[in-house]
Amino acid sequence: MEKNITEELREKIFEFFLRLGDDRLILGHRLSEWCGHAPILEEDIALANIALDCIGQANAIYSVAAELENKNRTADDLAFLRHEREFKNLQLLEQPNEDFAFTIARQFFYDQYSFLLYTKLSKCNYDELKAIAVKSLKEITYHLRHSKQWIIKLGDGTEESKNKIQTAIDNLWIFTNEIFFIDDLIIELTDKNIIPDLTGIKQEWDNAVKSVFEEATLTMPDTNDFVSGSRQGRHTEYLGHLLAEMQILPRSFPNVKW
Amino acid sequence: MEKNITEELREKIFEFFLRLGDDRLILGHRLSEWCGHAPILEEDIALANIALDCIGQANAIYSVAAELENKNRTADDLAFLRHEREFKNLQLLEQPNEDFAFTIARQFFYDQYSFLLYTKLSKCNYDELKAIAVKSLKEITYHLRHSKQWIIKLGDGTEESKNKIQTAIDNLWIFTNEIFFIDDLIIELTDKNIIPDLTGIKQEWDNAVKSVFEEATLTMPDTNDFVSGSRQGRHTEYLGHLLAEMQILPRSFPNVKW
Repeated sequence: MEKNITEELREKIFEFFLRLGDDRLILGHRLSEWCGHAPILEEDIALANIALDCIGQANAIYSVAAELENKNRTADDLAFLRHEREFKNLQLLEQPNEDFAFTIARQFFYDQYSFLLYTKLSKCNYDELKAIAVKSLKEITYHLRHSKQWIIKLGDGTEESKNKIQTAIDNLWIFTNEIFFIDDLIIELTDKNIIPDLTGIKQEWDNAVKSVFEEATLTMPDTNDFVSGSRQGRHTEYLGHLLAEMQILPRSFPNVKW
Repeated sequence: MEKNITEELREKIFEFFLRLGDDRLILGHRLSEWCGHAPILEEDIALANIALDCIGQANAIYSVAAELENKNRTADDLAFLRHEREFKNLQLLEQPNEDFAFTIARQFFYDQYSFLLYTKLSKCNYDELKAIAVKSLKEITYHLRHSKQWIIKLGDGTEESKNKIQTAIDNLWIFTNEIFFIDDLIIELTDKNIIPDLTGIKQEWDNAVKSVFEEATLTMPDTNDFVSGSRQGRHTEYLGHLLAEMQILPRSFPNVKW
């Protein structure tokens, strides 16, 4: 079907790939900061593995995106030579790790969304996207099992663990609404049959999160305050600092070969 | 006297300027991180002012150094386009701010040294160095008064403030010994009459610190563990992260004009 794609549509698919790739790169980088610092050794290894999965998936997505863009940019260029406003990741994923509960809450919110999104994408009509989704879904399924188990363990644990995970959930909740925002890009890609209809995801996510919270004896936050703008490149103060750390090497040694 | 200087000696004077400039730039950057976070408003402004003094002095030192080097590098190039191992600042100054007591202990150790060093340099025979030292000494005198007062206030204050400042002193003490190391560069510059004899500074510093600690009812740490290597470009893990934050803008937009 690629032959029928106009230049304009190609740019829009590229933009959609960036959203997917940026989400996974930024989350992967954040998770990698745990390496050597997690509360127990097994969890240290788990978080490092999930970080590697995310960065690996980002790399695969950027590679397809770079080919699609056809402007002589590589996957590395997309990761390391774009500026803050050019990143389209969710603000949720750039938030600092804070404590373990905070990291798990962020992860669960995103894993639950990813699982639903990639399940849909794994049945889409755009072959390159479908291939990535099918391959990623195995890892994402494991990530979701991991973060979900921790939500239940911490929520239905000691008073301290319950307080910590509930605080994390309450603080991160404002970042969850924009995950599901259907903008012109999504509408057009759905209309053009590139991606499946994504409108159902929010309800499925709400139901899944509610069910896990019930098992974990946790409370769903009740607020109308929500952030927005990630997909247009608007970010919290944390992304710039993250990019500085992540990009300083390729920025300092341009075109260096390993 | 500049006309009599060989190329080799010129390089050594340049290296000495780098040590002076790097000390002040790295400390200034660290202090700037306090902006908006200090315990009281007056102190927030004081720390920001000291940070600006340090960065201003670094800029003046780098400007003279760049001219001396005569290799088409500007003061900004020296600050923003050198790599970690090329920085010759003391490891003491790259240590993270931690809490306010930690910041004050680091500052006092360095201010007391700077005051003695710049007092000597303000009488040296190398005009550019003398001019910088004379100009900086006014600011450094104020910095020392500020950090010294805080050492006494915290040490001779509450039990909590005393514990915090003593802990900071004990933790930073291993970084103080190398401040006074007289290496071949210092010996040669002294022999060539560029800088005055600096060997007396350590004893003067010890006496001054001891006297302030007595007034503050604090204990001089007793250890034989000391770090070394800063002046050869060996650093703790913290410098790389600091440089990433400090350099990302000029690294990301090379040759940009403001």
